[in-house]
Amino acid sequence: MISKSIVKFIKSLQIKKYRKQEQAFLVEGAKSVTEVIQSDYRIKKLLATEPFLQENQDILAHKSFEILPVNEKELSTLGTFKSNNAAMAITEMKPNIVLTVTGKEYGLVLDDVRDPGNLGTIIRIADWYGIKKIICSNTCADVYNPKTISASMGSFCRIEVFFTDLVDYLSKADCPVFGAFLEGKNVHQTQFSKRGLILMGNESKGISANLEPLVNHKISIPRFGEAESLNVGVATAVICDNLRREFPIN
Amino acid sequence: MISKSIVKFIKSLQIKKYRKQEQAFLVEGAKSVTEVIQSDYRIKKLLATEPFLQENQDILAHKSFEILPVNEKELSTLGTFKSNNAAMAITEMKPNIVLTVTGKEYGLVLDDVRDPGNLGTIIRIADWYGIKKIICSNTCADVYNPKTISASMGSFCRIEVFFTDLVDYLSKADCPVFGAFLEGKNVHQTQFSKRGLILMGNESKGISANLEPLVNHKISIPRFGEAESLNVGVATAVICDNLRREFPIN
Repeated sequence: MISKSIVKFIKSLQIKKYRKQEQAFLVEGAKSVTEVIQSDYRIKKLLATEPFLQENQDILAHKSFEILPVNEKELSTLGTFKSNNAAMAITEMKPNIVLTVTGKEYGLVLDDVRDPGNLGTIIRIADWYGIKKIICSNTCADVYNPKTISASMGSFCRIEVFFTDLVDYLSKADCPVFGAFLEGKNVHQTQFSKRGLILMGNESKGISANLEPLVNHKISIPRFGEAESLNVGVATAVICDNLRREFPIN
Repeated sequence: MISKSIVKFIKSLQIKKYRKQEQAFLVEGAKSVTEVIQSDYRIKKLLATEPFLQENQDILAHKSFEILPVNEKELSTLGTFKSNNAAMAITEMKPNIVLTVTGKEYGLVLDDVRDPGNLGTIIRIADWYGIKKIICSNTCADVYNPKTISASMGSFCRIEVFFTDLVDYLSKADCPVFGAFLEGKNVHQTQFSKRGLILMGNESKGISANLEPLVNHKISIPRFGEAESLNVGVATAVICDNLRREFPIN
């Protein structure tokens, strides 16, 4: 049985205000929890079912965090998943540290991407395409939202995210900024630089007017049919794929 | 005030069994409803708020379907959206007609894509990349699920979808089948044929074993980082983008 105070604490972490206050967040489900245990995140408490503990004895050996055994029903009631037969990790946030791209590196810059599912999907895409740094406007969805964590499919463990004011950040950037617009240059014909930033805009409004002057190259995904737009996650993947055609990194 | 029998009818259309029985489905929200009104779908009834009716007088002129005025609160209670201040169209399904690709055409084939949101996203992507036909296994999500319709952002009006047995369908296909696998040939180096089918698999299991022998070209999106996979919608977009680099159609 989980104590009432822990139940209350877990419920509070579903709300951004309390996550910030406690500097902690929830990681749910077998895949994400096994990844976070093996990452450099610090776990405060692990709630886990007996089968999960059995299956993951190897990665749990020599770990010093508290483990609270729970059953599937308790876990499902506590968390945000419809069902969870595995585990939940109460995890410490990392500090918000300035990220810059160096050498032959690319970074993703997200302007006001509001949907936590989209942010999580973009983190997963960055991880697929070997982009390790994401710079978010302060108005983006919270990277520690349970939906972001879940949609990232464990990739949040490998990708660094920095929240900041983008006018300030892009003004100081010492590399080309490629921004996704509906009326930019065809990305199939874009020559990417060796190092750069790719700026993606809000789900419905695109890139903010005050960031437009800070974009060096406006790019577009060519359209061959009649859909008005692509989802921001989908568009990010297509642009990263075009970048990696030109600059594969392994 | 909407009658109890219409409320009951609308609620029933949120369930696949009743949609099939009634051969009708729901289209919700301003964008999708304005698109469906202007498409070749037959509307049975339109529930709409006064502002929506005012704004869309032009597209509603000479239409013979019944219009039921509602307020925002009623609409939001009736439908599947959290809020809907515009309209809902009770729309007739189209018959499930065999689709084949001809000339220089490409079709998407979806094997067991279960999530209605993913199916809707893929319909939107197909519409962006000028692919007009999608062939779905009978185990795919329902194209008339409100989540599919919503995620397609109106593109369901322009894209034809055919549900069938894929072993039978692919056995009879007279064009190359390109299947997305994790261990296929790099899609950046794939030479697409002028006409073909692109087969995408289930969200977690990929392409079924019994379809594998029917694939002529196994293709993969190259990975440069550590994510295990990409979402099926995202992968579909990246493959379509690679296809259109080679065979742009406009």
